[in-house]
Amino acid sequence: MIVGGGFAGLQAARSLAKAPVRVTLVDRRNFHLFQPLLYQVATGGLSPANIASPLREILKRQENAEVVLGEVVDVDAAGHRVKLRDGELSYDTLIVGAGMRNHYFGKNHWEPLAPGLKTVEDATSIRRRILLAFEAAERERDPEKVRALLTFLVVGGGPTGVELAGALGEIARDTLRQEFRHIDPAAAKILLVEAGERILPSYVPPLSMRTVEGLARLGVSVRTGCQVIDIQPDVVRLKTGESEDTLAARTVLWAAGVRGSPLAEVLARATGATLDRAGRVVVEPDLSVPGHPEIFVIGDLASFSHQTGEPLPGVAPVAIQAGRYVASLVAKRLAGESLPAFRYKDPGMMTTIGRSNAVVQLERYLSTGFIAWLLWVFVHVTRIVELENRALVLMQWAWNYFTRNRSARLITGEGDAPH
Amino acid sequence: MIVGGGFAGLQAARSLAKAPVRVTLVDRRNFHLFQPLLYQVATGGLSPANIASPLREILKRQENAEVVLGEVVDVDAAGHRVKLRDGELSYDTLIVGAGMRNHYFGKNHWEPLAPGLKTVEDATSIRRRILLAFEAAERERDPEKVRALLTFLVVGGGPTGVELAGALGEIARDTLRQEFRHIDPAAAKILLVEAGERILPSYVPPLSMRTVEGLARLGVSVRTGCQVIDIQPDVVRLKTGESEDTLAARTVLWAAGVRGSPLAEVLARATGATLDRAGRVVVEPDLSVPGHPEIFVIGDLASFSHQTGEPLPGVAPVAIQAGRYVASLVAKRLAGESLPAFRYKDPGMMTTIGRSNAVVQLERYLSTGFIAWLLWVFVHVTRIVELENRALVLMQWAWNYFTRNRSARLITGEGDAPH
Repeated sequence: MIVGGGFAGLQAARSLAKAPVRVTLVDRRNFHLFQPLLYQVATGGLSPANIASPLREILKRQENAEVVLGEVVDVDAAGHRVKLRDGELSYDTLIVGAGMRNHYFGKNHWEPLAPGLKTVEDATSIRRRILLAFEAAERERDPEKVRALLTFLVVGGGPTGVELAGALGEIARDTLRQEFRHIDPAAAKILLVEAGERILPSYVPPLSMRTVEGLARLGVSVRTGCQVIDIQPDVVRLKTGESEDTLAARTVLWAAGVRGSPLAEVLARATGATLDRAGRVVVEPDLSVPGHPEIFVIGDLASFSHQTGEPLPGVAPVAIQAGRYVASLVAKRLAGESLPAFRYKDPGMMTTIGRSNAVVQLERYLSTGFIAWLLWVFVHVTRIVELENRALVLMQWAWNYFTRNRSARLITGEGDAPH
Repeated sequence: MIVGGGFAGLQAARSLAKAPVRVTLVDRRNFHLFQPLLYQVATGGLSPANIASPLREILKRQENAEVVLGEVVDVDAAGHRVKLRDGELSYDTLIVGAGMRNHYFGKNHWEPLAPGLKTVEDATSIRRRILLAFEAAERERDPEKVRALLTFLVVGGGPTGVELAGALGEIARDTLRQEFRHIDPAAAKILLVEAGERILPSYVPPLSMRTVEGLARLGVSVRTGCQVIDIQPDVVRLKTGESEDTLAARTVLWAAGVRGSPLAEVLARATGATLDRAGRVVVEPDLSVPGHPEIFVIGDLASFSHQTGEPLPGVAPVAIQAGRYVASLVAKRLAGESLPAFRYKDPGMMTTIGRSNAVVQLERYLSTGFIAWLLWVFVHVTRIVELENRALVLMQWAWNYFTRNRSARLITGEGDAPH
């Protein structure tokens, strides 16, 4: 049984295609989401369906696999059963890849004011907020309120924060140009704040600097060493060193923290496993849970520090390799064989900074600018699971690129701006 | 001032591009929706953004036009002002194209049980219900409950009902094939009920018959002369002639009735205009409201019977021609000229019955089958406003056609099935 149809779980399921096992993939959603492009949905460049593939469609020809739409609420490790919200299933081997959730460091009341970007609903809600802010500014006559409506704060200078801020810059400067009669969208103030001393801290310092420069060209100001200490409707309090200031901003987006799915706590209770500070399950060198060789945790939810002393980062390549590793470990075990400990082979990192700019850090290779962006497009397009999505995403991008338009700019859903 | 960015209002706005006027287009949504393809969103074939174009994008180069995102709640005809939910605007000429809403003939409690198909949210909600019914059936062990979960009832045999039922047939027989392990989606029972004596009553009788045959090949049963007399969760009561029976069905879709937007009543109060039985505003031969030559009603919301004695049908060509007519009337008036009464030139009708089948009725030309379907595809694709959407929709269709897949099959949103 595999819980979670993200990169880790889906890869595990597919890698078990030829093994003499029955695979049950349980997910709360009926689709696999290509998370690295979710910021494109949040900023109106792509539709949700462009980056989501129905799990049943992906696995329909894999005869040993079945998909269950359900939510796991408890695990009975002794009885080898998982409890769903509406039923129970039993397993021989349990592979958990339930991923991470947005995390507000104990300030959960910030969540409705500063949405994070984890689900399709998060993305369409962020899209609605961004577009409604420009719409409200167009109708507003009080210049101070217009300024607050056109101020966008992105919290967190990791890849998601950088990509969101860059896309916001493009929306304001290119996409919406000429579309309003009373405001100049390009006058929007976009601020990316990061508590640490530089953005993209997992990259080498020169690439962080290049990213700041690239964002500046899109009108995004970066403030590092800056903490958000309070979020209220329309007002954010920031602290830089010893000085505090307030910023009037209607739209605040959260890319500052994630924490393990609640399923990690369920597993900890069921197996006595330890969670690390980010709520991830500390796993053995073979990704199993201590004392339970039949339970594995893979993907973002696993805290695996046996290789570098630090937990591996929560990125797609780690998840995919872990899924593949666990699948082959399961197959080997059935054949009475064993496998050495999991080792992550880092293929490098890349983050895009808007139209035709990106930073790429491969083992010996650093790159920024257009070539890096082409590489980024190539890698992301070829990785999208389904052939169709690949072609359509590429076409949509090509169109967006040449026209600077974003056609998936729909304000949908019932919700309004926070107030 | 134009209220409503549908086919009628948008056409009026664009046709006024060269007139010496200022155009304000007010809509509650930020996009124009290509309504004739909404059933494709409801059945997972297209994404909402494929059939929606931002109004600001469409009008951005039209310098005399501005777009206001807002909801009109009242009209002061004497003072030439409209009241928005959050503000007021004044006008010299008011053109109202606010369209229709789903209508349940006084049984408003049916609405949550049998959603209609008017908005993007309606479409994604119907998509969720359809897909969740198959998911629940896959998990259910009680054969009677499985049968109810796999029974789909479409109420209303007009074009929307036919297209929904046909698409449901395709989903069950083609799209979902091989995707489930415990149920056979093709065993789904799809029923189209129509109170009148035949479906597609606006077509000639032989085409109605061909449609019934085409639907039968997709596994859809048609029951005419059959009224829905009650809808309860999971159970529907039907009446055919004198006999009543009940049908266990989880999913009921409503395509049986629409009624004028509440704005029609606002206009009636403000101007003394008469509404017809469907809640549409009875208009003069020049589409103006009696006694108010400066107020026009166009599109579905207008009840115009001066040409045939019957109100013109609520279809896109009527709306587009009315929008164009009113725009040119406004321009003529400013030049001190006049225009003869509005005359609708009927370009014919077409309705699709699933993959590679349609019925087409032009003036002297009747067609069904593949050629009719190609014509349908051609007309609809070329009509979609934006070049980009056109290309992407065409690609998506080509893909769906050859693979029999529907990739926009996402269960999104917070809501669940009705219970």
